[in-house]
Amino acid sequence: MPIYTAPLQDMRFILNDVFKADAFWQATPELAHIDSETVNQILEGMAKFSQDVLVPLNRTGDEEGAKIENGVVTTPKGFKEAFKAYANDGWVGLGADEEWGGQGMPKMVSVMTDEMIFSANPAFMLYPLLSVGAGMALNSYASQEQKEQYLPKIYSGEWAGTMCLTESHAGTDLGIMKTKAVQNADGSYAITGNKIFITGGDHDLAENIIHLVLAKTPDAPAGSRGISLFIVPKFLLNTDGSVGERNHVGAGSIEHKMGIKASATCVMNFDGAKGFIVGKENEGLAAMFIMMNYERLSMGIQGLGASEVSYQNAAQYATDRLQGRSATGVKSPEKPADSILVHPDVRRMLLKTKAHNEAARCFAMYVAQQLDMTKFSDDTTKAKADERVALLTPVAKAFLTDKSFDGCIDAQMVFGGHGYIREWGMEQFVRDLRIAQIYEGTNGIQAADLIGRKVTKNGGKFVATYLAEIREFAATMQTDWMKAAVLKSADTLEALTTHVVERAQVNASEPNAAAVDYLHAFGLTSYAYMYAMIVEAASKKEGAFYKNKLDLARFFVTRMLPELDARAKIIESGSDVIMGFDEGYFTAFA
Amino acid sequence: MPIYTAPLQDMRFILNDVFKADAFWQATPELAHIDSETVNQILEGMAKFSQDVLVPLNRTGDEEGAKIENGVVTTPKGFKEAFKAYANDGWVGLGADEEWGGQGMPKMVSVMTDEMIFSANPAFMLYPLLSVGAGMALNSYASQEQKEQYLPKIYSGEWAGTMCLTESHAGTDLGIMKTKAVQNADGSYAITGNKIFITGGDHDLAENIIHLVLAKTPDAPAGSRGISLFIVPKFLLNTDGSVGERNHVGAGSIEHKMGIKASATCVMNFDGAKGFIVGKENEGLAAMFIMMNYERLSMGIQGLGASEVSYQNAAQYATDRLQGRSATGVKSPEKPADSILVHPDVRRMLLKTKAHNEAARCFAMYVAQQLDMTKFSDDTTKAKADERVALLTPVAKAFLTDKSFDGCIDAQMVFGGHGYIREWGMEQFVRDLRIAQIYEGTNGIQAADLIGRKVTKNGGKFVATYLAEIREFAATMQTDWMKAAVLKSADTLEALTTHVVERAQVNASEPNAAAVDYLHAFGLTSYAYMYAMIVEAASKKEGAFYKNKLDLARFFVTRMLPELDARAKIIESGSDVIMGFDEGYFTAFA
Repeated sequence: MPIYTAPLQDMRFILNDVFKADAFWQATPELAHIDSETVNQILEGMAKFSQDVLVPLNRTGDEEGAKIENGVVTTPKGFKEAFKAYANDGWVGLGADEEWGGQGMPKMVSVMTDEMIFSANPAFMLYPLLSVGAGMALNSYASQEQKEQYLPKIYSGEWAGTMCLTESHAGTDLGIMKTKAVQNADGSYAITGNKIFITGGDHDLAENIIHLVLAKTPDAPAGSRGISLFIVPKFLLNTDGSVGERNHVGAGSIEHKMGIKASATCVMNFDGAKGFIVGKENEGLAAMFIMMNYERLSMGIQGLGASEVSYQNAAQYATDRLQGRSATGVKSPEKPADSILVHPDVRRMLLKTKAHNEAARCFAMYVAQQLDMTKFSDDTTKAKADERVALLTPVAKAFLTDKSFDGCIDAQMVFGGHGYIREWGMEQFVRDLRIAQIYEGTNGIQAADLIGRKVTKNGGKFVATYLAEIREFAATMQTDWMKAAVLKSADTLEALTTHVVERAQVNASEPNAAAVDYLHAFGLTSYAYMYAMIVEAASKKEGAFYKNKLDLARFFVTRMLPELDARAKIIESGSDVIMGFDEGYFTAFA
Repeated sequence: MPIYTAPLQDMRFILNDVFKADAFWQATPELAHIDSETVNQILEGMAKFSQDVLVPLNRTGDEEGAKIENGVVTTPKGFKEAFKAYANDGWVGLGADEEWGGQGMPKMVSVMTDEMIFSANPAFMLYPLLSVGAGMALNSYASQEQKEQYLPKIYSGEWAGTMCLTESHAGTDLGIMKTKAVQNADGSYAITGNKIFITGGDHDLAENIIHLVLAKTPDAPAGSRGISLFIVPKFLLNTDGSVGERNHVGAGSIEHKMGIKASATCVMNFDGAKGFIVGKENEGLAAMFIMMNYERLSMGIQGLGASEVSYQNAAQYATDRLQGRSATGVKSPEKPADSILVHPDVRRMLLKTKAHNEAARCFAMYVAQQLDMTKFSDDTTKAKADERVALLTPVAKAFLTDKSFDGCIDAQMVFGGHGYIREWGMEQFVRDLRIAQIYEGTNGIQAADLIGRKVTKNGGKFVATYLAEIREFAATMQTDWMKAAVLKSADTLEALTTHVVERAQVNASEPNAAAVDYLHAFGLTSYAYMYAMIVEAASKKEGAFYKNKLDLARFFVTRMLPELDARAKIIESGSDVIMGFDEGYFTAFA
């Protein structure tokens, strides 16, 4: 069975040494009750739960998968008990407001517990994740009565939540959805239509499932401006708030997927189901986006979790596996062969994955802090943080999942042929992670969002503010080689931003042609910034743990950052080499 | 069901316009009986067989998988009939000598039919591939009597073959294998041991299976110089050559894998099985390597096949899928949305995959021609070709499979969420291809072989000859931008080669630290050479088909070749940033 040890020391280093969380919390009145000692207990609790309860269910969950019979979905053996324990320990509500039974922890804490669960059992994680997302949308847009009806039950884990957006012909382009909502005499709505790819659309973990459904009222404007949001409970509530009769909504089938097989991905049929509008008609998409911004950071963390557990298993395998001899002379003469950790190429794969993981963890924490600022800070800080979150969310989702996928692939390769065999678990990490690049808006869509709404639309203003912060930090740095690297990266990103902003005026095809490469250039520059912070924090300390942080930063700068220049070159080549082909060219197969 | 159309026009372009195959065959006495008309019929025959018979069995084969019950392995429904038809039509022996019932076709032909089968059904392809490999080793090293006993039956498809190398503790490092061969009184050997990862170790497609087994005799020298090769038939032969009693060899289990599930990957138990030595004691590895050189090109073609079929399905999906509107104005006002082919980023993914496929097809043909020269040419040409094949084989295996994996990943992404759903088939292409980066020597091992035995060991001499050929070709070129690109690439590869040869003298860790990046730099330079040839051939012709070749070459040069400089930069960073970490660092997880 694959191993997993929550990387608590690395997490504490990021939280305390790099981000000086205690000082931040003290300076933020709404978070002043939190301290690193409390947080440490939370981290240790989740480490134990992940390692002891969730890890053992990961492969059995994959082998067994979620099942549907007569319209009833069941989760794999052990999931029900694990979810009950998870809910009873208060994990669903970790980041929720205390008013609704939550623990009121900031994102800077849940970003770390989420990583652990995603390492241990990503399919499991998706169930509470959707509950939390639904809770968040309700918390922002629902009426007081609706909040009272649903939020305590969701955060206690007694009920679960979903988000029902996609239809078979409407994914990225939600404006063309067909699900209809017709108002009933009592003010509720009758919802009719079919949704696909609904994570946790049905299951046996909770007594009720609260679906948040996007649909169109009969006279709604065309396109995405005519979408409304509805609460559609699996079981309608009695007047006392208890679970009543079954609503006309159910899972028609579950998808057969490449991975996350223990997560029930459902086709949901709404057959005049009773729904209750959230907020006003035609304003449903805004509420969904609140939820999706949080989900998108979560998908980045899903990537990190997979890459971390993949790394750990590959590092352990490389240490244990004896094969061949070191090129610099036999290292273990008493054994039939040296450990494969003596081979530079094996180390290269491990270090590349590890260097990504540590930068990703730092970047996730950075974005989490910005999210916390949007929630808990004064107005000036909040406005700046809103801008920063808007800018970095697509990067956190797409760059982290892309680089994490590379990490899982490299880690699988360390195992040689055993990496392809299911019992070793490495191939499951690859399969399970792959979805994180695709769902919640594909990484291509994230890149389009970044270069469109977040960069060219505001003339590069958000980027300029971010770069100013990076340069301000660099100006304080003591470590010259890292300072030079981060400043050079910032210059490159600035030049690229100017380039894409200018080109967008001239040719509307240019931004999307540059999008994915720009997002990766942005991500690499952000990692350089993260390593700048890591290096400054680590160089103030003594000991091998900190010395290794510096060496890993140097590995990043010399062996991973050169990709930035290649991305820049590609962006500069423009869109003509892409758009010049006739449509028919692509399908002229014979 | 996924679509597939054999890319015959592209294949003929490579064969006839780029490589002028007819002229080459005419100039080579042993191949003078071949002409492009005959070859065309072969290609059309395999196109039909692949499309009609093999494609429909690909997904059902994945869903059903190979099965074992009471030590008996069965292939999925339809495989038996398909293999019988395949064998009856003479495909197993397509490239085999006519003396043994083969059709005597050169590799330049089978490289194209192999691509089709790998596109249509890679798991199926592995059965005859192993037969052909076993046949090749026997043809080179076995006695006349052994050849007569086994080769006609193997090439007719009545019997199948395997190669039994790996043991659970001995993969890359075959020198520490434990399987024993003790000579019997009658001159045969008793083979005892366990082999793993044996492709087609048992199955129901053939009446007998001829295992080629590596084992050590009791007094063999330690390490890889003490390995001998044995024929171990599943059923021993009667004196008349017919199938007789069962030998003491059998499948203990079959592996549960990420993909190629219809291919039976067996754990094989040899329990004093009767084996017959091939060649002399302790010379087994050389015979295996004959076979492996051919297999390694085949793995590259497995990559190409997967990337081609992935591309075709993604291009078709992008054409059919309506979602969003073009940034340059609505393209299909009569439809609810434009096809996603209007989006530059979707085209980018398709073109990147296609540009790889066409370069890979050309490179595979180039290596195939060199292989044919090693077999059919005069001594001078043969010696040069031997050198070239040695140099390019690891590139053909590793670079083609790595880039093909990227192609499958991009193509899967074009499908959005549907790419993750099994019914669409895209995720199977990813899973099935993944093994090609791992088996027959991982791509890391290929890179080590390239930079070690093929580059630094001869001081870069093989590379110098290759670069001289590239520059000689470039000197004749008419198209300036392509000429400049290929010459610049050649200069970069030359500088890198000088660098790694020099550094290898100074520090034994340097070659392996540079290996994978060097292999990719080598591959990119080779692709630039292929595009140089393609551009010269296409620019002599009129019409959209040829014009598109030039445009695709330009896409490669501007949007894919920039990776070369990044690889160069990484190589120059050396091994110290990798080797400086203590061993314990890698597994300090907590």
